Amino acid sequence: MNLENTLLMIPGPVPIVPRVQRAMSKPMFGHRGEEFGTIYDECREILAQLFGTNNEIFIISGSGTASIEAAIGNLIGKDDTIVTIENGKFGERLCDIGDRYGRAVKLQYEWGTPIDLDAVDNALEQGAKAIAMVHNETSAAIRNPVEKVAELAKKHGALFIMDAITTVGGDTVLVDEWGVDIAFMGSQKCIAAPPGLSAITVSDAAWDAMVDNRPYYLDLKAYRKSGSNNPSQTPYTPGVPLFSAMLEALRIVQEEGMEKRKHRHSQGAAAVRAAAGVLGIELFPTIDQYHSYSNTVTAMNIPQGITDKQLRGEMLDMNIQISGGQAHLKGKIFRIGSMGNFTATDMITTICALELVLHRHGLIDNIGEGVEAAYKELE
Amino acid sequence: MNLENTLLMIPGPVPIVPRVQRAMSKPMFGHRGEEFGTIYDECREILAQLFGTNNEIFIISGSGTASIEAAIGNLIGKDDTIVTIENGKFGERLCDIGDRYGRAVKLQYEWGTPIDLDAVDNALEQGAKAIAMVHNETSAAIRNPVEKVAELAKKHGALFIMDAITTVGGDTVLVDEWGVDIAFMGSQKCIAAPPGLSAITVSDAAWDAMVDNRPYYLDLKAYRKSGSNNPSQTPYTPGVPLFSAMLEALRIVQEEGMEKRKHRHSQGAAAVRAAAGVLGIELFPTIDQYHSYSNTVTAMNIPQGITDKQLRGEMLDMNIQISGGQAHLKGKIFRIGSMGNFTATDMITTICALELVLHRHGLIDNIGEGVEAAYKELE
Repeated sequence: MNLENTLLMIPGPVPIVPRVQRAMSKPMFGHRGEEFGTIYDECREILAQLFGTNNEIFIISGSGTASIEAAIGNLIGKDDTIVTIENGKFGERLCDIGDRYGRAVKLQYEWGTPIDLDAVDNALEQGAKAIAMVHNETSAAIRNPVEKVAELAKKHGALFIMDAITTVGGDTVLVDEWGVDIAFMGSQKCIAAPPGLSAITVSDAAWDAMVDNRPYYLDLKAYRKSGSNNPSQTPYTPGVPLFSAMLEALRIVQEEGMEKRKHRHSQGAAAVRAAAGVLGIELFPTIDQYHSYSNTVTAMNIPQGITDKQLRGEMLDMNIQISGGQAHLKGKIFRIGSMGNFTATDMITTICALELVLHRHGLIDNIGEGVEAAYKELE
Repeated sequence: MNLENTLLMIPGPVPIVPRVQRAMSKPMFGHRGEEFGTIYDECREILAQLFGTNNEIFIISGSGTASIEAAIGNLIGKDDTIVTIENGKFGERLCDIGDRYGRAVKLQYEWGTPIDLDAVDNALEQGAKAIAMVHNETSAAIRNPVEKVAELAKKHGALFIMDAITTVGGDTVLVDEWGVDIAFMGSQKCIAAPPGLSAITVSDAAWDAMVDNRPYYLDLKAYRKSGSNNPSQTPYTPGVPLFSAMLEALRIVQEEGMEKRKHRHSQGAAAVRAAAGVLGIELFPTIDQYHSYSNTVTAMNIPQGITDKQLRGEMLDMNIQISGGQAHLKGKIFRIGSMGNFTATDMITTICALELVLHRHGLIDNIGEGVEAAYKELE
C-alpha cells in the first residue's frame, strides 16, 4: 500500500513542498518566449548568489552528472591532462569522465578518507590543464577542502572544477572568492527542487580554455549564446515545468535566507551525529584538520546485529526512507540526509524511528536517548 | 497580463491535460526503488508499442537533442563515416553532431524540399558505418521517406538512425518492420507529456557496433545496464516528476488507441492545409511521390501584406500561440502544430483567429471560409 506519504530523508531527491508542486503544474507554455525567459533569468540570478559568483549561470536539463560532463568535456581534449580526486563515488565519476575526454591523473583514496594535499600539489606540479574534485562527497558524507585545492590549482596555473552538487543552497559556496573556474549543482539537493536540472557557472579563464570539439547537448558555448538571447533561452528544449518548480524553490531559499538555511543544514547533520554518538553507531568518514563531516548528509556504519535490509526496511515500514551505501559500501553503511526544506521535527521523527528499530533488535536498552541528543543540536 | 490560458498550437511543447499535471505533481519519491522502477518499466513497455519495436527502450532525462547525440555519439568514432541528410533544421543538427564525432558526409537540400534518394544511394555506396535522417522535419513540416532510406541503408550494410522526435505517438512508426537501428522521440511532442525527456531504442546490430569511447551522460550501455536492474533504473538521477507525467500521458495514448490518434493528427494537419487553401496561403514545403506533408505540423508562407510579428502577435493577443520559422526561415513562414491531445475545436479556434487577423489586415474578404474548409476535414 503506497499512500505517497513517505518522508524522504535521503541525500536527494528531497521532498517537494506544495508551493513548488503547484508551480511545477501550471499550464504549459512555450520555451522561446518572455514567460520562460523571465523564469530562466530569475533562476540564474538567485543561483549566482548561492554559488557566490558574478559569473553567468546556465541551467542544463539533465542531472548533476550532465554538468560534470559539461565541465570536463568542454575543457579537456584528448591530449589534455586533468587531475581528478576520488574519495567517494562522485570523485570516481570525475575520474571516469576525465578518462573519456583526456588523460586523467587520478588521485584515489579510500572512500570517506581524507585526500592528501601534498599529493595534489605534486600531481599539479607535473602540469595539468585542470583539476576536478567534489566539494561534498555524498556517498561518504565527507566535506573536502576545496579552498586548499583551489589554492594549489592557482599556484600551478590549472583550472579548478568543483562538483558542488550537494552544497549549493545548503552550505557555504564561494566560487569567486575561492577561485573556482567551473562549479555546478543539482536541483534535487539542497535547494529542494525536483530532480532533472543542473546549474553550472563558468569563469572567464575557463571560457578562454575551451576545446573546439565540445559535446553537443552539453556545449557550454551554446548555452552562453542562447542565454544571452532576449528573451533568454536554452539551446535545446528545456524541461519547462522543472524550471517553474526550481524558481519557486529558489524563492523559498531566499525567503529563508542563506545564513539561516546553512545553519539549519548544519544543525540537522549535527543532530544525526549526536544521536549516533549516544546510540553507539560509528560515523563512517575519517576526518582531519582539512576535512569535515558533511552538513547535508551523514554516513554511519551499520551496527553489528542488524542488516542493512532490516535497518532501512523497518524504517521504511514506518514511512521514513533513508539511504544505504553505494557500490562496495552497500550493506556496510547507511546515510541520513539533512538536505532541503527538512524541519527539526523531520529529523526527530527519523531518529525516533531509528531508535525503535535498534531497540526492537536489542541493540539499545532505552528509547529516547538518541532523540534527546539530537534535540539539543536542533534548538 | 498572463492568465496562463494560452492555447499552444506550436509543434511542441504541447498543452498538458489536467490528468498529466496531477500525475506530475505527486509527492516526491526516490529514484532507486520499486515505485520509480514500475513507472519506468510501464513507460518503456507502452513506448515500445508506439515505436513498433521489440527492442528495449530507454528514457533519457534531456531533450530530443540528447537522444540525437546519444545515437551518433555511441555509434560513431572519429574515424567512422556517417551519412547525414538535411532538409530542415533538425537534419542540420544531425550533420553538426555527425561532425563532432566522426566524418559526416552531408547530403544537404533546401529546407522543406525533397531529398534525393539516388544521392543517398551513391553516398552509401562509398561506405559508411551509419546514416541518419529525420522522419518528420518539424522546421519545414515535411515528412521524409524513411522506409526508402532504410532500404538503401540495408542494401549497403549501414546502420540506420531515425529521428522520430515528432512522429512517435502521432504518426506511423515501424522501427522493426522498416529496419531502423536507432530511433528516438521527445516527450513534449505527439504523446503530450511535458518537455524534458526523450526515449530511444537500439537494435542488436547497433549494440554490437558501439564505439568504446562513448559519451558519459548519454552512454547507452550504461542505460542498458541500469535498465535491467530490479527494480529498473536510469544510470543517473532522472527527472522523476517528468516520468510520472509521461506514464499518464502514455496511458492516455493507449486509451485513445494509436489508430484513432494517428487519424486525428492527420485530420488536424489536413484541416490546416484546407484552410490555407481557401485563404490563399501557400504551403511552405515542396513534396513529391516520396515525401508528404507532415501530419503533426503545417508550415505556410507568411502572406504578402502582413508581417510575422503582426500575424503571430495578433493571434497571441487572442490567446492562440503558433510558431514562426527557425533560422533563415524566421519571418518567412509560420507553423501550426497538430500534435498531442488537441481537439477539433482547438483547430477551429486557431483557424478562426487566423482568419480574424487576415481579415483585419484586408487580406481576405470574408470571415468563415477557412473554418468551413477546416471543418470538413475534421468530421
